[in-house]
Parts: sequence; structure tokens; C-alpha cells
Amino acid sequence: MLTVAAENETSYTGTVPDRDTLLFVRENAGKRYEILKKEQNRQNNTGRLKIIPLGGLGLIGMNITAFEYNDSIIVVDCGLAFPDEDMLGVDLVIPDVTYLKENIEKVKGFVFTHGHEDHIGAISYILNDVNVPLYATKLTMGLIEHKLEESGQLRTTRRKVVKQGQMINLGDFRVEFIRTNHSIADAVALAIYSPAGVVIHTGDFKVDYTPVFGDAIDLQRFAELGKKGVLALMCDSTNAENPGFTASERTVGKTFDHLFSENVNHRIFIATFSSNVDRVQQIINTAYKYGRKVVLEGRSMVTVISIASELGYINIPQNTLIDLDEMKNYTDEQLVLITTGSQGEPMAALSRIAANMHKKIAIHPNDVVIFSSNPIPGNEKAVSKVINELSEKGIKVVFQDTHVSGHACQEDIKLIYSLVKPKYAIPVHGEYRHLKAQAELVEELGIPKDHILMLKAGDVLELDANSAEVTGQVQIGSILVDGLGVGDVGNIVLRDRQHLAEDGIVIAVLTLEKYSGQILSGPDIVSRGFVYVREAEDLMEEACAVVEEAMDYCNSHRILDWAKMKNTIRDSLGEFLWKRTKRRPMILPIIMEVE
Amino acid sequence: MLTVAAENETSYTGTVPDRDTLLFVRENAGKRYEILKKEQNRQNNTGRLKIIPLGGLGLIGMNITAFEYNDSIIVVDCGLAFPDEDMLGVDLVIPDVTYLKENIEKVKGFVFTHGHEDHIGAISYILNDVNVPLYATKLTMGLIEHKLEESGQLRTTRRKVVKQGQMINLGDFRVEFIRTNHSIADAVALAIYSPAGVVIHTGDFKVDYTPVFGDAIDLQRFAELGKKGVLALMCDSTNAENPGFTASERTVGKTFDHLFSENVNHRIFIATFSSNVDRVQQIINTAYKYGRKVVLEGRSMVTVISIASELGYINIPQNTLIDLDEMKNYTDEQLVLITTGSQGEPMAALSRIAANMHKKIAIHPNDVVIFSSNPIPGNEKAVSKVINELSEKGIKVVFQDTHVSGHACQEDIKLIYSLVKPKYAIPVHGEYRHLKAQAELVEELGIPKDHILMLKAGDVLELDANSAEVTGQVQIGSILVDGLGVGDVGNIVLRDRQHLAEDGIVIAVLTLEKYSGQILSGPDIVSRGFVYVREAEDLMEEACAVVEEAMDYCNSHRILDWAKMKNTIRDSLGEFLWKRTKRRPMILPIIMEVE
Repeated sequence: MLTVAAENETSYTGTVPDRDTLLFVRENAGKRYEILKKEQNRQNNTGRLKIIPLGGLGLIGMNITAFEYNDSIIVVDCGLAFPDEDMLGVDLVIPDVTYLKENIEKVKGFVFTHGHEDHIGAISYILNDVNVPLYATKLTMGLIEHKLEESGQLRTTRRKVVKQGQMINLGDFRVEFIRTNHSIADAVALAIYSPAGVVIHTGDFKVDYTPVFGDAIDLQRFAELGKKGVLALMCDSTNAENPGFTASERTVGKTFDHLFSENVNHRIFIATFSSNVDRVQQIINTAYKYGRKVVLEGRSMVTVISIASELGYINIPQNTLIDLDEMKNYTDEQLVLITTGSQGEPMAALSRIAANMHKKIAIHPNDVVIFSSNPIPGNEKAVSKVINELSEKGIKVVFQDTHVSGHACQEDIKLIYSLVKPKYAIPVHGEYRHLKAQAELVEELGIPKDHILMLKAGDVLELDANSAEVTGQVQIGSILVDGLGVGDVGNIVLRDRQHLAEDGIVIAVLTLEKYSGQILSGPDIVSRGFVYVREAEDLMEEACAVVEEAMDYCNSHRILDWAKMKNTIRDSLGEFLWKRTKRRPMILPIIMEVE
Repeated sequence: MLTVAAENETSYTGTVPDRDTLLFVRENAGKRYEILKKEQNRQNNTGRLKIIPLGGLGLIGMNITAFEYNDSIIVVDCGLAFPDEDMLGVDLVIPDVTYLKENIEKVKGFVFTHGHEDHIGAISYILNDVNVPLYATKLTMGLIEHKLEESGQLRTTRRKVVKQGQMINLGDFRVEFIRTNHSIADAVALAIYSPAGVVIHTGDFKVDYTPVFGDAIDLQRFAELGKKGVLALMCDSTNAENPGFTASERTVGKTFDHLFSENVNHRIFIATFSSNVDRVQQIINTAYKYGRKVVLEGRSMVTVISIASELGYINIPQNTLIDLDEMKNYTDEQLVLITTGSQGEPMAALSRIAANMHKKIAIHPNDVVIFSSNPIPGNEKAVSKVINELSEKGIKVVFQDTHVSGHACQEDIKLIYSLVKPKYAIPVHGEYRHLKAQAELVEELGIPKDHILMLKAGDVLELDANSAEVTGQVQIGSILVDGLGVGDVGNIVLRDRQHLAEDGIVIAVLTLEKYSGQILSGPDIVSRGFVYVREAEDLMEEACAVVEEAMDYCNSHRILDWAKMKNTIRDSLGEFLWKRTKRRPMILPIIMEVE
């Protein structure tokens, strides 16, 4: 593994470094001079910390935040977002990191909080332009390395594994990785020390006193930092609308025990998030207890669990895991299948199984399917579709008490604030409604309203012990990835796709003699997605006549310019079709020319 | 109003008619003979009742069920469904009623349970082919008549208003309209008397002991019928997965009171379903109590409330309702706006207001927006979008405790079964998972498993006191309505729209000399929704070259058939674009011919 030494590595001492132990030496005056020439860096010497979210606020996913102090920038996370419903054909969405590119000489590295796609998923795209070292805990790095391997970037990327509790120096910053709990192991909050003060970024977290893997969140360290004084807390807002505490992951294990004992004679399928390694661990534990063999199904399930297993984050008893092809050697009551597709994704294993489209797994009425997940908003109908398909085949579907969230609810959020007691509160991770919900909670805790900072992506927040204010904006955006194309699907292409999706396309083609403008061939009308043509021949013939009329009009009005001819065709054909069908297909006139 | 007298009208006597009081006289032997010639009617003289759902099972919406006995068919409800996500560009979905058309001489009329779109919405389409009398309670008929007025069918449709508690005779059937509660007034369950026995169809219902309008569900009548013996109960399954009882509509009124007293200085917006007249009544009551004027906004809101008000189903105190244009004469604390858009529908009033796109209403931070509704599955993201837009503008959004369901939960369903004690249970109204949930409930109540009949649309269930079995299938289906087109968007058109939506279209056009096959013009490549062309000129030029090569290949291999030429172009161009972009746009080769 290609590694990089952090500029200054400190092991966890249990005490907060005093501010004056941080280094401010700028070795290269020339370099500084260059940087100072840039407008956006003029104010750098005010000694204030800048926090610049480049994504992750006002939406779920695409988490990435830059911290800047003088000549140093560090970036927390580099996640992707999944496309909205109106982003037709788009595979995924990554952040616009123009700001990092323009300040590349300052960027010291990426620091990751945990290994979920919305925190690491964009890194292989971003590294092309921003090739700086990566810092993450072991499991997180394992998942990142898998990405880099697939994209062929493993050898060109510097990276360093850190431990929960460790500290590293990066330029003017020191970063401490504080142990938290989440729905994946090895999650950390970050304490980011700068000369302007300490900022704590929780990442995604929950408070789990009895986690399945590793230890509970290091509440003492949060308290210790709080006692010494924390400038700002950036806290996960995902569940800020939900009252109460988030239940321990371990409670789900008890439900599995119960369900296995209730269904001893059935084959059991459990659908869950492949990234929830602890969930899979608990299923395996219960399977082992009940003498069942475990089959993993779904590409991401197999990938993630292999990585977790190699790195020691999951403990699979010998002879428990079997291959899909070995299933035939076992009876129903000896098997558990752990599968992807808990969100009803049409191409995931469970959906294919439910639709009888899986090549190797045939479901039958003696099966029980457990959804160990809640539908993510937007996926409800897809999940329902799978449940209905399974129910219709006589299969028992269980989807209650088999999931807990990985995010802090209201009481957990209050706990963290009460330990950290930050000067400023900056709600992060969530749609605006979630950020707002945290802001309201925090206000109840007595933090003054003007110390609760509602940022949006692109805001440049400058802060120190005396003040905090948004002083500017940097370029941000959502870059759409479709197939191999990164950023080549923009608003125009999307608008066209939406138009095509709504009412299809009608193409009018004709060939003209170059000099006379006489029609040599056509007009032909071709349509797709508009109307079932075999039963609409009259309509198509009339449409042809309308185009002919439009050409006659052009002739008699001496309209020879092609663009104008096309507009005339588009207008008359569009009007005709709207009148007759009340639909507005895309109208595409094509004129060919022959000498 | 054009009305029709029911064949035999009986006012509610409070007793169940004995079976032998029903008429079986067939006045026209010739007609019977004709009917008997048809294969599907051969079995009619077995004296069994047929229940044939033509929709409404296995999906939400499109409720329509035929009841057939000998030469009589009556149809319960005639609803529409809203399109699934993959039905791109489709406006609404109506049932295929081929079976009714083929048996038109038997069809005695449509009987409606209540005035919601999923129960009445398809009637104006279906009447074109199945023009039979309509029977409904006053508010339901008012809403139907509004539709018929818009479609110009009011004068050609026979219809009769019935009262809750009334009975009518229709051919071999007698139908009793039993008072129920739902989220719209004037809802009824139907007791359908046939010589084979009595079937009760609940329609959509809840048990509300303290309804806002009218009286509570007539539980005594359900009990009385049950005591005398009910052959089958067809019961609403929508909430069959939800434990407990459904709360009274009146509880929402108390929440409104509370919210109005909490927000005396704010302008209040309340978004709800336009069809929930009782909800609007309660908002108006609270508004009146707090001295506020009420503005209705959104086309369907204005329409439904006008009809309800004309017919006496809503009581609006004088000088309470004001026009949108009068709003300027009042201060924030004097106003309530009741608006459509509670489901985040992009073109509804609230969505336009939230996006600052409403022509007459500008929202400001002193406004409070109350969502008096729950998101229907599939609408969660759209609703969240509106909530976020409002929150970002600093507006307080309330969406808790301001809605109750109009459908019976598990304990209510058990209550109805315990009153009716039917021989057979037929869960209706819901996706398969909901029907299944009711089936499980009913089994717990002690109804034998083989007396619980899980029907699907198109099944012909034949039953009498001795047996119940599915004996056949009739043609059913979902007919898609897009603009003026009914049924002209089928699978091919939808598949094309999905393909176009995913990756757009690439068109390759060329003009050939008719006899030589020589290229006179082109190939030209035109694309839409594929890639941003200005930044992909190289790709387009290469694509042109690929088409030229394909034509060369055709030439050298003497491929002169156009269909084969097009296939060659399609294959090479498709392969080229996939390799270069990993996208699969629709490829459309067009060949023009010049003599």
C-alpha cells in the first residue's frame, strides 16, 4: 500500500493540544506571495477559520466540506448523491470542486468520517483533479481502496490509515479522529484544531451504548473537548425531526433471534443494506446459533462483507458461509440468504428473486422474507411493489422491528450538544427541514439564535472566538454522471429527456433540391413514444399534409432560410398535434439537401 | 335533472327483505334465449351469484366490481387510478370494461359508494360504451354531475339520487345503501341482495362515532343484517396493516383550535385534500371562532367546496369566505388560506406558492403552513421538496397531528366482521399486501381459511350458500389516458418513452438515389437528450463516420434492402456509442429516397 506520512503525527494523548503547539511556519515565502495575489485569499491573514460546505446541506448525500486556514485547506468527506426523480437516466451525482481545483496548492488532504457512499462515493472522480492524500480509519479506507482499484487509481493515490483516537497534523490543522457509532463500523467524528479554535464535526453518528462491533461512542472525549472550549459543533441532522433516542443496533439482533425461532421450518431471506456490516454480523450470529448456513447474494453485499471480513470487522464462524451454488445441498430450514434490494431497487437481487427473474434462486411459499431496513423517502412504492410480488406468491413478509437507524435522534443530539457546549452550532447532513429541526432543538438548549448558523452549500463561513459570518460564496454544483460521461448531461439534455419522456418525439424529414428548394423526397413522419402508429395512420397522414402545407407556405412567402422553414414546420405540426391529441411531443424537423 | 326510476323502489323499512320477495320474472323470453346463446352465460342458471372485480384489487384505485345474477349485472363504483412512475406522460388510468360492453343488455346500472376519484373518476369515459343509469347519494351524485357537465354527458346520462338507508331494485338485485363514515360525507356501504344471498360491500369506510357531518356509521344495520345471515363481506383493506382504531375526524378539529391559538399573529395556510369536505368544514369552524376570513385556493378545492356548499354538505358562516382578490384588505392575523397541494403536486397551488410562482399569493416569513394530510406512498419526496422550500423562506411548517385517515384500521375491521359474521370474507380495496393483512386478521377471528377469498381483478367468483369458487376469468386491464387519447398509449409507446427518458435519441438520416443506392445527402446525425452536442462535436463526427462505414459495408455486401441497411446502421452506431459513452440511446436510422 502506498502510504503517506502525515506532516506531523501525534498519537492520542488524552489531552487537547494547546493552541500554541500548532505550527504556523510557512516555509516558502514565495509560495505565500503567489497565493496572496489571488483575490479570494486576500482576507486569509485575518486569522479566522473558513468553513466552506461544497455539498451535503439542503440535500441528503454528497457530503463534502472544506476547512481553510491561511494556506491550508483540508476536506472532510467526498460523497456522492443519488439522482432525483427528474434527473432522467443519470446514474449518480458528484460535487463541483472548482474551489478545490483553484486552490489546489493549499489542499492538504481528504479526511473521511466513515465508509458510506454519501461520504466516500465521489472520491475516484474528484481525485482526477484534486490528487491529494486520503486519511481514513481501516474499514473506511478498505472501502475507498476497493473503489480506487476499480477505477485504476490505487497506485497513484497517497493514503494513510488512522485509528479511532489518533491525531494527525495537516498544514495549519490538527485533526483528531474520535470514536462514534453509526450503521457501519469504524465511524469517527473529527475534532479539527485550528489557530482560530476547535471545530467538532460529528459525521453521521448515533449514540449506541451496546454496539455490535467495537466500543461505544467516546462521550468522555466529547466532554473533555467541551470542557476546554469548542468553537463550533457541526452535528448530524438526519433524524433531528425524530423525538427520543435511537435504539441500539443490538436490539435488532434480539428480533432476529425471535424471528428465527418463530420460523424454524422456513427458509429465511433477509434484505438489508450491504453497507450495514453490523447488521450482517448479527444475522450471521443468529444463523450460527440456529445451525443455519448463510448465503450472501448481491454484488455490493459480497464486496462489502469480503472487505469487512478481510479487515477483521466481521466475524464469520467457520463453515457458516456457503456459496450460492451449494444451496442445493441444504434443506430450507438449514438456510439463510442475506441479500441486497431492501430498497426495492429493480436490478437488485431481492427484486429479481421476487419477480422470478433470478437465475439461481427460485422463491417458494415456504420462504420468509425479512426486510431489515426502512424505505428511504422516495423508495416506498418500489419497496411496496416487491412486498406485493412476494405476498402474491404466498410468501410471508416481515418488515417490523427489524431495523434501527444509524443516526442520532433528538435526545442524542441534545446529549452531544450538552457535552460539547460549542460557541456556535452548525447543523449539517440533511435537507433544509432537518437542519431547521436541529436549529430549533439547539435553541431550546439555550444557544443564542445568532450563534446557530444555517449554512447552505457554497457559503464561506468565517469564524473565530469573536464572531462568525458568511463572507462570500464559492462555486458549487451538482455534476451528473451518466455512463462514462461526467458533466456532459446538463440542463438542456435533461430537459430534452423530460420532454421525450412526457409525450415522445415526432420527426418530420424531407429532402430538398439545393438551389430550387423543391421537395425531392418526403415529408416523412416518424414518431417514437407518441402514439401507437398502427392505430393512428390517419393522424400520421394528416400530419404529413400539415408539413406539406407548411412548406407551401414557405414557398409562397419566399421563406428560404432553413431555420425559418424548420420553425414553420415545428409550429404548424405542434399546433395540429396539440389540437388533435392534447399532447405536446418534441417536434424535430430535419431537412436534407441534394444538389 | 334527468332522472330514472329504479325498477322497484323501496324505502328503508328497517327489516331485511325476505329472499322470496325478490322478483325473477323475465318478461321477455326471446331476450333470454338470445342471452343463453352466449357461451359465457351458459352457466347462469345455476342460481349462483357472480362477483367479478374489474379493477381495484392489487392496486390502489380503479375500483369497479360487477355483480351478476342470471340476466342482471350491477356495477359498484367506476374509479380511476393515477399512473405509476413508469407510465411516463400518462394522465390517468381507467379500467377495461369489455366484459360490461359484451353483456350490455344485462347491465342495470352503476351504484356508487362515495364521491372520490378512485370510485367515480372513470365514469365519463366508461359511459361512452356502457350508458346505463347511475345511482348515488346526493353529494356523490353532485360530484359525478360536475364531471358529466365537463364532458358534455349530463343530458344523455340517466341518474338517480338515493338516500343513506334507502333500497332500490335493479334487475334480480336489490341494493341497500347503508350509512358509513369516510373522509367525505354521504359515503355508503352496499347490501346487495340476490337470490343466492346477501353480500355487503363496505366501500371505503371508517368507524367514526363523532363524525363532523351527519351521523355515525349505521352499526346496528350491519348487526341486523349479520344476524339474518350474510353470504359474503367485501371489506376495505387500505389500513389493514395498521393496528388499533382510526381516530375520529373531529380530533383534527381540536388540533386546529390549538394551532390557531398558538399562531394568532401569523397568516395561516392549510393544505389538505380538496375532497375532504369535513376537514375544510373544521378549518372554517376554527377560522370563524378566531375571527379569520377564509380563502379557498386551487381549482379542485374551489370546485368541490362549491358543490358541497350548494348541496348543504358544508356550512360556511356568512362573510367568512372571501375572494383571493380581497385578501389585500386584511392583515395576516385575519386570514386563513385553504389550499390544494398537500401531496406536493408540482402544479398545485401550494407548490406554486412555495416556489414563488403563484401569480397572486406571495408567501412571507410571518406565514405558518399546516399540512393537514399524510403523504400518499410515492409522494414523500415531492412533499419534502415543498416543506424544504417553505422552511428555507423562514416559514414555520406544521405537519403533525393534523390528519386522520378515512379508512378502518385493524380493530375497526374486526368490529365490522364481528357484526356481520359473513360466511365468506373477500378483502377489497388495496394492494396485495393490504388484502393479505385483512385475510390474516379475519383468520384470527375464526373464519375458516377456505372461506377467505383472495380475488384478483378479472376473477369470476361464483358463490352461494354451499360453495364459493373462482370459475373463470374475464378480460380486464388498465387503459391509459394521455391527453385526448384513451388507450392509444400502450406498452410499445411506454417502452419507447422509457428508453427516450433514459438516454435520449440519436437519429441518423441519409438520402439515397433510388436505383443506384448512392448516398445523395448525409449521413446527418441529430440527437436529443443524449449528450450536450456543443461539447461533443468530435463524438458526433465519429458517429457520422461509423454510419458511412456501415453504408460502405452494405454496398460491398450488396445489402440493398432498407430494413437490413437500417439494422446495420443501428447495430454499428449503437455499439460505437456504448463503447464510447456506456449509454444506450434509442438509435433511429431514417433513409430518404430520391429518384
